[in-house]
Amino acid sequence: MPESQVPIDWLADEHPQEECGVVGIYAPSEDVARMAYFGLYALQHRGQEAAGIAVADGHGIRMHKDIGLVSQVFSPERIATLKGDFAIGHVRYSTTGSSSLRNAQPFLIDTQYGPIAVAHNGNLVNASELRAGMLRSGVGFSSSSDSEVLTMMLAGATGTTWFERIQNTMRLWRGAYSLVILTGDQLYAVRDPWGIRPLTVGMLPTGGHAVASESGALRSLGCQAIREVKPGEVIMLTNTALSVGQALPPAERTALCTFEHIYFSRPDSFWDGQSVHQVRQRLGMHLAEEAPVGADVVVPVPDSSIPAAIGYATRSGVPYNDGFIKNRYIGRTFIEPTDSLRKMGVMLKYNVVVENVLNRRVVLIDDSIVRGNTTGPLVKMLRDAGASEVHVRITCPPIRHPCFMGVDMGTYDELVAHHHTVEEIRQISGADSLAFLSLEGMMKAIGRSDGYCNACYTGVYPFEVNAHTAKTGFEQAVGGQE
Amino acid sequence: MPESQVPIDWLADEHPQEECGVVGIYAPSEDVARMAYFGLYALQHRGQEAAGIAVADGHGIRMHKDIGLVSQVFSPERIATLKGDFAIGHVRYSTTGSSSLRNAQPFLIDTQYGPIAVAHNGNLVNASELRAGMLRSGVGFSSSSDSEVLTMMLAGATGTTWFERIQNTMRLWRGAYSLVILTGDQLYAVRDPWGIRPLTVGMLPTGGHAVASESGALRSLGCQAIREVKPGEVIMLTNTALSVGQALPPAERTALCTFEHIYFSRPDSFWDGQSVHQVRQRLGMHLAEEAPVGADVVVPVPDSSIPAAIGYATRSGVPYNDGFIKNRYIGRTFIEPTDSLRKMGVMLKYNVVVENVLNRRVVLIDDSIVRGNTTGPLVKMLRDAGASEVHVRITCPPIRHPCFMGVDMGTYDELVAHHHTVEEIRQISGADSLAFLSLEGMMKAIGRSDGYCNACYTGVYPFEVNAHTAKTGFEQAVGGQE
Amino acid sequence: MPESQVPIDWLADEHPQEECGVVGIYAPSEDVARMAYFGLYALQHRGQEAAGIAVADGHGIRMHKDIGLVSQVFSPERIATLKGDFAIGHVRYSTTGSSSLRNAQPFLIDTQYGPIAVAHNGNLVNASELRAGMLRSGVGFSSSSDSEVLTMMLAGATGTTWFERIQNTMRLWRGAYSLVILTGDQLYAVRDPWGIRPLTVGMLPTGGHAVASESGALRSLGCQAIREVKPGEVIMLTNTALSVGQALPPAERTALCTFEHIYFSRPDSFWDGQSVHQVRQRLGMHLAEEAPVGADVVVPVPDSSIPAAIGYATRSGVPYNDGFIKNRYIGRTFIEPTDSLRKMGVMLKYNVVVENVLNRRVVLIDDSIVRGNTTGPLVKMLRDAGASEVHVRITCPPIRHPCFMGVDMGTYDELVAHHHTVEEIRQISGADSLAFLSLEGMMKAIGRSDGYCNACYTGVYPFEVNAHTAKTGFEQAVGGQE
Amino acid sequence: MPESQVPIDWLADEHPQEECGVVGIYAPSEDVARMAYFGLYALQHRGQEAAGIAVADGHGIRMHKDIGLVSQVFSPERIATLKGDFAIGHVRYSTTGSSSLRNAQPFLIDTQYGPIAVAHNGNLVNASELRAGMLRSGVGFSSSSDSEVLTMMLAGATGTTWFERIQNTMRLWRGAYSLVILTGDQLYAVRDPWGIRPLTVGMLPTGGHAVASESGALRSLGCQAIREVKPGEVIMLTNTALSVGQALPPAERTALCTFEHIYFSRPDSFWDGQSVHQVRQRLGMHLAEEAPVGADVVVPVPDSSIPAAIGYATRSGVPYNDGFIKNRYIGRTFIEPTDSLRKMGVMLKYNVVVENVLNRRVVLIDDSIVRGNTTGPLVKMLRDAGASEVHVRITCPPIRHPCFMGVDMGTYDELVAHHHTVEEIRQISGADSLAFLSLEGMMKAIGRSDGYCNACYTGVYPFEVNAHTAKTGFEQAVGGQE
Repeated sequence: MPESQVPIDWLADEHPQEECGVVGIYAPSEDVARMAYFGLYALQHRGQEAAGIAVADGHGIRMHKDIGLVSQVFSPERIATLKGDFAIGHVRYSTTGSSSLRNAQPFLIDTQYGPIAVAHNGNLVNASELRAGMLRSGVGFSSSSDSEVLTMMLAGATGTTWFERIQNTMRLWRGAYSLVILTGDQLYAVRDPWGIRPLTVGMLPTGGHAVASESGALRSLGCQAIREVKPGEVIMLTNTALSVGQALPPAERTALCTFEHIYFSRPDSFWDGQSVHQVRQRLGMHLAEEAPVGADVVVPVPDSSIPAAIGYATRSGVPYNDGFIKNRYIGRTFIEPTDSLRKMGVMLKYNVVVENVLNRRVVLIDDSIVRGNTTGPLVKMLRDAGASEVHVRITCPPIRHPCFMGVDMGTYDELVAHHHTVEEIRQISGADSLAFLSLEGMMKAIGRSDGYCNACYTGVYPFEVNAHTAKTGFEQAVGGQE
Repeated sequence: MPESQVPIDWLADEHPQEECGVVGIYAPSEDVARMAYFGLYALQHRGQEAAGIAVADGHGIRMHKDIGLVSQVFSPERIATLKGDFAIGHVRYSTTGSSSLRNAQPFLIDTQYGPIAVAHNGNLVNASELRAGMLRSGVGFSSSSDSEVLTMMLAGATGTTWFERIQNTMRLWRGAYSLVILTGDQLYAVRDPWGIRPLTVGMLPTGGHAVASESGALRSLGCQAIREVKPGEVIMLTNTALSVGQALPPAERTALCTFEHIYFSRPDSFWDGQSVHQVRQRLGMHLAEEAPVGADVVVPVPDSSIPAAIGYATRSGVPYNDGFIKNRYIGRTFIEPTDSLRKMGVMLKYNVVVENVLNRRVVLIDDSIVRGNTTGPLVKMLRDAGASEVHVRITCPPIRHPCFMGVDMGTYDELVAHHHTVEEIRQISGADSLAFLSLEGMMKAIGRSDGYCNACYTGVYPFEVNAHTAKTGFEQAVGGQE
Repeated sequence: MPESQVPIDWLADEHPQEECGVVGIYAPSEDVARMAYFGLYALQHRGQEAAGIAVADGHGIRMHKDIGLVSQVFSPERIATLKGDFAIGHVRYSTTGSSSLRNAQPFLIDTQYGPIAVAHNGNLVNASELRAGMLRSGVGFSSSSDSEVLTMMLAGATGTTWFERIQNTMRLWRGAYSLVILTGDQLYAVRDPWGIRPLTVGMLPTGGHAVASESGALRSLGCQAIREVKPGEVIMLTNTALSVGQALPPAERTALCTFEHIYFSRPDSFWDGQSVHQVRQRLGMHLAEEAPVGADVVVPVPDSSIPAAIGYATRSGVPYNDGFIKNRYIGRTFIEPTDSLRKMGVMLKYNVVVENVLNRRVVLIDDSIVRGNTTGPLVKMLRDAGASEVHVRITCPPIRHPCFMGVDMGTYDELVAHHHTVEEIRQISGADSLAFLSLEGMMKAIGRSDGYCNACYTGVYPFEVNAHTAKTGFEQAVGGQE
Repeated sequence: MPESQVPIDWLADEHPQEECGVVGIYAPSEDVARMAYFGLYALQHRGQEAAGIAVADGHGIRMHKDIGLVSQVFSPERIATLKGDFAIGHVRYSTTGSSSLRNAQPFLIDTQYGPIAVAHNGNLVNASELRAGMLRSGVGFSSSSDSEVLTMMLAGATGTTWFERIQNTMRLWRGAYSLVILTGDQLYAVRDPWGIRPLTVGMLPTGGHAVASESGALRSLGCQAIREVKPGEVIMLTNTALSVGQALPPAERTALCTFEHIYFSRPDSFWDGQSVHQVRQRLGMHLAEEAPVGADVVVPVPDSSIPAAIGYATRSGVPYNDGFIKNRYIGRTFIEPTDSLRKMGVMLKYNVVVENVLNRRVVLIDDSIVRGNTTGPLVKMLRDAGASEVHVRITCPPIRHPCFMGVDMGTYDELVAHHHTVEEIRQISGADSLAFLSLEGMMKAIGRSDGYCNACYTGVYPFEVNAHTAKTGFEQAVGGQE
C-alpha cells in the first residue's frame, strides 16, 4: 500500500462518516480473534480506514492493528497468533490528514492495574480540556485521539475494581462513548449516559457473550437474546449471565443519534429497539405524505435510500424501480480522472438505468444532504438520461449544524444547508422540486417524540459544547504519521 | 498478499463466474492507461482474479499486469509509466488452482510483425487441438491459457496487414472470443462469428474511440454512439470514423450467451440491443405469469435478482421489499469460520430483514441455480426469521449442461439440475414451492426467438464440442505458479 | 514482509547485539530527513530490526518508523513527506519476542511543552523502578521499552527550558543513555555521566551540525571537527557554534563500554578519542605477546576480527591470510535448513579457503566468545579443510557476567564462560589451544588504565544494579505485537 | 517494493556485472527447493536483480520467480509449495531498463515433449539471428532475453531423447551458455564447447547430485567430489553415478572467462581447477614484481581485491593493512543524495581508516578498471586522509573491448581504457602512479598460457561476433514491464 500518499477518494459520496465500530467477545471455548474478525467484517461500513483486534488470555494482552480494511489487516497467520478467551476489535474511519496508524485502535497500554486495551466509538467534547489537564500533570500523549485521552484516564483512575475505575472516570467524560474495554482477564462494555452511539450485547449459542456497535453484527455471529447496553451502563461479559451495573444514571434527556437511523446503521440492525429498515421505510412513507408529487417512478440513491424509496412508493402509489446502478466494486482508489476525463463525464460510481427514467417524472429519494456535492450530478444524470422531471426528496431535515459527537461533519463551513435555503439548494441541484422531511415527520417515523439528539438539524446540543475545542482543537497537536 | 495460499472463498455464492472483461482505448490526446483503468474498474464484476493494461505509443508496447483487483494492481506511479495513444485492458476470473500470474492477461509477445498484446474474453473449444498442433511444430507455451494459443497463432499468421492476419486465424478458431488486439500503432476489436460474448464500441466525447465488454463500461467513460461489434467483425479503432471489416460472415445461427442477460452483465449495460435491466424485469414478469403464487411479499436475492423481483412484484401485484441485506464490503478473505462457528450460524454475507418477512408468505426471486449451494441456506434464513411460506422462483430454466464457451460451469458433476429433478431440488432447498422460468418464457422476456446459445439448459451446443478437451484438457499441462 | 513469523536467524553468529544507533541533524538548508537516512545507513550495523526518522520544521514533528532495514523502511516518497530543519533517527536491534513496531523508535509524544521525539541508545538499569512509580501516578505505557519511560519522564519534567528539564530528569536516570531529543524547534544530544555509550557531534560543511552514535557515520556525512559528547553533557545543535552545557558532572569513575572497541563500533570510528581500527590492531599485537604459538598462518573470523589478526600477524611474524570467506549477502532469512541438510553440512555463512590452511598450523583470531556457539564449528571447518593445528586467540577476556547497559547478553545462563573454564571451552571448541587476552593486555591495547566498564569480564558494575529488574523485569509487562 | 521506479544505485561500484548464477539439485529424499534456495543464496553475488526456482516431481513442473534478492523472493510458505525430486534455480543481474519480471528466469514452457524449465548463465552472440529466424517461422517471444530464444529452440528441437534434442540445438548456439535444464523427470547441466562460463557438479552426502555455477556454492551445500562440467558436456543428474555425455567436442581453443578469476567468482570457488583465492594472491605477487614501488602500506579495495593485496604485500615486503572500511549493509537503495549532499562529501560505501594511511606512501590494489568512476574518488579519499603518495595497481590489463559473452560491459563507449592511455587514466584518477598487470603476468598468475578468453583486453574474440546484434540488438524489441 502506498502509504505515503493521501488517497484522493473522488468517488466518495457526500455522506458524513462516523468514526468507528467496536466489537467484544467472551467465548472461552472458541477462537475469539476469529469471531472478532467476523464481527468487524459485519461492521466494516462504520470505518474503512484502520482495523485492530486485541485478545486477553487471563494474563496479558496481545494486539494487532493496521491501516486498511479488516480483510487486509488480518491474515490467518496473524489471527492464529491472537489466542485468548476475550477479544475486542475496532474499525475506524478518519478524516483526511490524520489517517495514521498512530490513531488506530484499540489503544493498548500498561497501567498500574495491569494492561488494558480500549476501543471507542464516539467523541468526547471535553477531550481537549481533559487532555490539557493531563499534559500539565506530566503525561505525554502519542496520538491526537480523544480515545487515547480516555484510555490514559483509565490508567490513572482510582478504585479497587475496574468497574469502580470506569465509573469514576465516566463522571469526567462529556460526549459520546460506546466502549469496549479489555483487561488481562475481563471485558467491559460501556455506554455514555446520553446513549449517543449504539452498543448491543448478545448471547452466543455455544456459551459466552458478544458486544457490538450494531445488532446486525451480533446476528452475523449467531447471537441470540440481543439487547442494547443502556445509557450509563457498564456490562461485564461473562460466560453465563451478564454482569450489569448502572455506573451513572442515564441522562435526564438521552440523546440517541438520529443519524444512525437515517444513514449509519445497517438496515438489518436495530437501534433504540426498532428495526432500522422499518424506520427507513416509514421515513419514506412520511415523506410521501409531507411532500407528494405527481410522478411516474420512485428511485433511490443506492444503497442507503432503498428502504425509504420503497416506503415512499408504497405510500404514494408511484411505482418503485432502480434508477441508478452502483458499482459493487467501488473502493478506495488512488487514481483519479484527469480534468479532461472529468469533462468527458467519467462517472464510475453510478450509471443511470436509462429505460427506467426516460420520459418519466422521477422522484429521487436520498437519505440526507450534507455537503451537497452529489445531488446535482445525480439530477443531471437523470436529466441526461431523458427524465422529464426530477423531484428530490430527502428523508431528514436540512443539516445546518456540525456534529461534535463522532460524526464527521464538524464545521459549519462544510454544510450546504448552513449557507443556503432549501430553494437555493434546489437551484444548485437543478431539481424541479426539493423537499426535506420535517423534524416532526422524521420523529414520527422513528416512533419517538423525544430522547434523540437532533443537534445537526436544530443546533440544540445535549450538553454544553465549545465548538473551538470539541473536535478539532487538538487534532493537529502532535504531527504524526507512522 | 499471501500469494502462497489458496483463498477459501467460503462467502462465494454459487454463481458461475465468467472468465473475463476487456477494454480498449484509442484517444491520442488523453491518458489512455488511466481510461483503461476506469474501464476495467467498471468491468470488475467480470473478473476479480487478475488485471492488466498494455499501452502502445506508435512504436513499442508497455504492459503491467498482476494478481488482484484493478485498484490493487495499479498505483498512480504505475499508471504514469504507461504512456501512449492506445491501451487495452483485461480483468480475469480464474478457477481455483490456476490462479496464477502466468495466466493473467493481456498476453504480450514479440512477433515477426512487431509486438502485439491480446486480451480475450471467452473460450476456444478447439484450443487443445490447436495447441497440440503448434507444440508439434516446435512452439513452446508458457501458460495453460487458450488465450495464449490464440495470441501465438497471430504471431504465425499470414497476411500483409493485421486485418488479414486476424481474419486468417479467425477461420481456425472455434468458440467464444471477444478480443482486443494491440499492435505498436493499431488497436483492433474482434468478435467471433457466433457472437457468443458481448463487445461494444463507442465514441469518446473528446475524440477517439473505446471498446469494452459491456456498454455500461463505455457509458462510465462518457462514450456516445455506442454499438455492438457484430459477429465476425473486426473493427480498427481510429480517431475519427471506425474502420469496420467483416472478417468472417456471421454464423448462420448466432449463439449469444443467454447468461449475460440472466446474471453476468451489469444491469445498466445493453446486450443484443436490449437493456439488461429491462430484460430482467421482464424475466420477473413472465415468471409471475408462469408461476404465480399467493404471497405477501416478493424479495430478491441481492443484487443480481433485484430487477426481476421488481418485475415479478409489478406483474403479480405482490409488494416488493428487501428480504436480505448483503454486506457491501464482502470480499475475498483468507479467514474462514471454524466448524464450531459455522454451527453457531455465523453468516457474513446476508442477514434477513426480519420485519419484512415475519409471518409473511415470501416469494424469493433468484436468477439461477447452478451448484445449488445457496438456495437452501437462504430459505432456512427466511424460515428462521418467521416467514410462513417460502416460494422460490428462478428467472431461467434448470442448468443441466456444462458451458465450454467461457463460463465457469465446465462439468456435469457440479450441476445440481443434472442430477436432480425440480421437485428434488425443492426438497433439498426446503422451499414450499420452486419454479423455474421456461425456456420459452425466458426467450420471450429476452424478446428473441432465436440466435442465442441455450446449451446450458438444452445441451444443444452451437458447434461440435469435445467435452474432454474443450475446457480442461490442457489446463494442467504446464504446472505453473509464479 | 511476513510479519507474523519470527525469523529464525540460524545464520546469526554468536555476537551480542547492541540495542541501537542514533543520529541527529540540524541543517536548515538541506534535506534533513535524507541526511538522517544516510546517517542511519552508516549505523545499520548497530541495529537491523527497526528504523525511524522524525523531523521538526519549527512547529510540529512528523515521523515515520517501521520494522526492517533502513533501506526497507524508507522510500523516496516517504522521505519527501518528512520536511524540516531538524531530524533525528534511530536503528534498533531487539531480542526475539519483543520485535514489534511498538518498541521501534523514535518515541514521539505530545507534552505540556509541545511535541518531543526521543531516540535512545543504551539501557537504564532503574527503568523498572521509575516505570512502576509513574504507573502508580496514573501514567499508562504503550510499550515495554525503557526508552518510553525516559521519554515520558521528560513530558513531566519541570524547568523553564528543555535544557533544565533534561537536566532535571537526568538526575533520576541510572544507566546508559546516549540520546537525541527533538522538540518542535530544537535538537539536543545527551550522554549519561558515565559515558557508557558513544555519541559524537560534528560540523557539516555547508552549515549546521550533526550528531551520531559513531564518528564513522559523521564522516560518511562529510562532517568535520568531530568531537565526542562528553559524559554528562547536553549539547544543543545550532547552525553556528554548538551550545554545550554540562548538565551533570561526569561520574567520578566513567564507564565507557570496552565492547565498543572489541566488537560494536565500525573500525573507521573513533571511541574515546582513539581509532577503533588501531585499537583492534593493538589488541592483536598484545595477544601475540601474551599468547604466542608456533604457526604458519594467522586468519581472522571476518569481518570484525580482521584488524586484530593483522596486528597479531605483524607482531608475531606469522603471515596473515584469509581463512574464511563470508557470504556478503547474508541477511535475515526466514528459511532454515532441515535437520537432514544440517547434517549434510550446509553452511551458508562461511566457507574455508582451503589452500590457505591445508597442512598448516593456523592461528584463528576472534574478537570474543559469548555464547560459544561459533568457535567449535569454525575450528571443525578448518580441520576438515586440512589444518594441521588450530589455535584460537580471543581479543578480550572471558565474558562471565551479563551486561545491563544495553548489550544483549543479559543473563548468566547464556554465557559459556560463566559455566566453563578456559580449558573446558577449548575442549568444547576442539581447538589445539585457546587463549584470551588478559584484562591488563586489553586495557593496554586500549591505551587506558581506567574509565572503562569491564563488568562483563569482572562483574564489577559502575553502579548498583538489580539483576532482576535491570533488564527483563518489565519486558513482558505489556503483551504487544502490532 | 516500489517496482515502478528504477533504483538509482548511486552506491554501485564500477564493476561489470555478470548476468547470472544457476543451480540444480537432484535429491529425491530431500527438500530440493530448500536446497536450491541455499544454493542461490551462495550465488547471490552473481545477480541481485531477480531469483527463481522450478521443481519437478516426476510429472509436472512448478515454479516461482520474482524481482528481488533470494531472501526476498522466497518465503517458507512459498518454498513449501515447491515439492519435487528435482529443482533448478537462477539469480539474475540485469542492466537498467530491462529489469523486469518478464526477463526473470527460469523460463518455463510447455513443449511437445512436456514441460521444460531452463536457467541460463551467459550470452549467445547469435541470439538475434536465431530469434529473427524463429519469429519468421511464426513463433512469438514474450521477452527480450536470449535465454528465451534458447528455451524456445529446445521446444522445437528434434531427437528422441532430451540429450539428443539438447545436442541438436547446441550445434546452433554460438556464445556462452552454462545451463541447467529441468524436464518433468530429468535434470541436465550443459556447458558450451568454449567453456566460457563456469559450471560444476558435486555429489551430495546423502545421495543425489547438485550442479552450480561455482564450486563455492556446492561446498556450501556440503557437496563432495566436485568437478567442472567440461566444455561441450551434457550431464544428466541422477541418484548414483552422473550420466555424462560429450554433446559437442570442446572447441579447439577454449575460451574460459579470465574475469571469473579477476572479479566474479567467490574467492572460495575453483575455476578451471584452480582456487580463485590462490590465483588472486598470485595476481598480486606478479603485480608486485612487474610494478614495484617504494611504499609503506598495501591496501585493497575491499572486498574483491583483498587476496591480491595480500599477495602484493607478501611479495613486495610492504605491510598489508586495511585502508578502507566498506559498509556491510550497503544494498540497493532508492534514495540518493542531493547535489548539495554530494558536494558535502556524503560517501556511504567506503570510509578511510585514516591512521593506516596518514603520512604513508600507499599502494592501492584494485582488481580492474572498467568505467573508471571509482579510482579517482578512492585516491582522493586517501589523499584527504593524509596519504603522502598513492600508487594504484590493477590486477589485470586495461579493458579496452566490450564483452558479448555475458558480462555487462557491452559497448566501447563505456570503457575508459578504450578512450584513454594508462597515463591519461592516471591523471584522471589523481594517482602518483598507476600500473596494470600485463597479459603475460596475468596468465602466469592464472597458471595457463592458453584456453582463456581475453577479448576484453585484446579484442580477439573466440568466434565471430557482430557487435551490432550480439548484445543489444533486440533488447528493446518487446517493451515490457510487468
